Amino acid sequence: MKLLRVGTAGAERPALLDAEGTLRDLSGVVADIDGALLADEEALGRVRAAADAGDLPVLDATGLRVGPPLARIGKIVCIGLNYHDHARETGAEPPAEPVLFMKAPDTVVGPNDTVLVPRRSLKTDWEVELAVVIGRTARYLGSAEEALAHVAGYAVAHDVSEREFQIERGGTWDKGKNCETFNPLGPWLVTADEVRDPQDLSLKLWVNGELKQDGTTAEQIFPVGEVVRYLSQFMTLYPGDVINTGTPAGVALGAPEPKPFLRSGDVVELEIEGLGRQRQEFKDA
Amino acid sequence: MKLLRVGTAGAERPALLDAEGTLRDLSGVVADIDGALLADEEALGRVRAAADAGDLPVLDATGLRVGPPLARIGKIVCIGLNYHDHARETGAEPPAEPVLFMKAPDTVVGPNDTVLVPRRSLKTDWEVELAVVIGRTARYLGSAEEALAHVAGYAVAHDVSEREFQIERGGTWDKGKNCETFNPLGPWLVTADEVRDPQDLSLKLWVNGELKQDGTTAEQIFPVGEVVRYLSQFMTLYPGDVINTGTPAGVALGAPEPKPFLRSGDVVELEIEGLGRQRQEFKDA
Repeated sequence: MKLLRVGTAGAERPALLDAEGTLRDLSGVVADIDGALLADEEALGRVRAAADAGDLPVLDATGLRVGPPLARIGKIVCIGLNYHDHARETGAEPPAEPVLFMKAPDTVVGPNDTVLVPRRSLKTDWEVELAVVIGRTARYLGSAEEALAHVAGYAVAHDVSEREFQIERGGTWDKGKNCETFNPLGPWLVTADEVRDPQDLSLKLWVNGELKQDGTTAEQIFPVGEVVRYLSQFMTLYPGDVINTGTPAGVALGAPEPKPFLRSGDVVELEIEGLGRQRQEFKDA
Repeated sequence: MKLLRVGTAGAERPALLDAEGTLRDLSGVVADIDGALLADEEALGRVRAAADAGDLPVLDATGLRVGPPLARIGKIVCIGLNYHDHARETGAEPPAEPVLFMKAPDTVVGPNDTVLVPRRSLKTDWEVELAVVIGRTARYLGSAEEALAHVAGYAVAHDVSEREFQIERGGTWDKGKNCETFNPLGPWLVTADEVRDPQDLSLKLWVNGELKQDGTTAEQIFPVGEVVRYLSQFMTLYPGDVINTGTPAGVALGAPEPKPFLRSGDVVELEIEGLGRQRQEFKDA
């Protein structure tokens, strides 16, 4: 299923994009799309039955804002340097074990919402990423296979990053990852049963129409199941938690000087195979 | 005011410790203690009026669990190496600007709850910290003085840390800061008007009865107002966000070998002047 949330920011209603691409209202079936729903087999079954019956009310998509497809996100754990090609372009050794950092859930916006270039930012950069949404509590998991059974679904994430804040201002990467609006998510939460192989998805990102990132999750150093298994040794993952699994090559940081960092007026579009497309206009904060 | 939440985990009710040290029920006045309450002058006024009237129902504190004093925490931002004496003991230069890392809100437990030593942990460590609770949205603040006006109150936080995960396993400090139960908070949220000077509070921590940390917030490299002002340049702080402002000298990491890291059975007690006392028994996860 393709689950989404539509409406004005903070007042989104749950919806479903059916197999014919028709937008349908889910608010008569569930209150919202969040970790509680993803952990509730019975409620998910009701959504699926309603979708299959084909009688959910049709929503007019015209002019309707798409919000992030998940409410009440608990935490966002991000994996750094997780693509062979991206590690090469930044001059880093492929890490021996996953590198992690965090984004606050309050950085999440809808897939087509405005993204703000922070004040005094000189190095705002893009990163298309496969986001993994947790559906079952994950704690000291024994294998990557077991870990995959804890994944509720997948989505497109834009891990917007300010490289000077991240790398040159002391301390950890979190300083350049948590600016307001820095995590567009969606348009859809695609349930795991509809993603044949999370390690065989193409990811693309364009800046002002020019293709900048053109990768595949086959290049991930640590695949999704291993990332979830690994993280569960250091923290407990809960339903509604999100993992941004890293970005492929092609970010501004990896380009020759002068590096093409983002400015007000730039338009970034990004897409992952089967998970939908985002488009953001950048403006000054 | 000293605000707190009492009852079983996940079902706490709001309460108040009055000037005589009597525990009083606030559940007839407000639904819970969270960012929405702290941002709501009118609701806070009702709490204050009820406290002043002295007619809130008395709660029997016998056997009553104290939970974390704040529900629905949005994010926890932590400041590293923020005490002159702690920077010295770890052999680090005092940072030129605040070092930040993050803890997920799901690490928060009550002040006297069990803390779990993670599996395969060899270096679980303690850190008594002054926690700052945000009461007004803070974004690109102009001065430390302005920043202090965005602080709703203060609490004791225990920033439990696994040093091998934090420092020796690649990537950022977050890996050793987000283990389950790693952020006891409370017992009280003391409103800012009752804290005469946040830069003149003594902090103490004992392990199995032995005094290990004996510091003062006067040693903070970046005082509370400056920390809030600084963070607001990189991220937006919202009501109900928490900032752990760093720990003074005396952690296990700073001790001579063999360093006395925590094990199952150890008891840690900590206290900040005017903000109350915590006591945790450590057990294996």
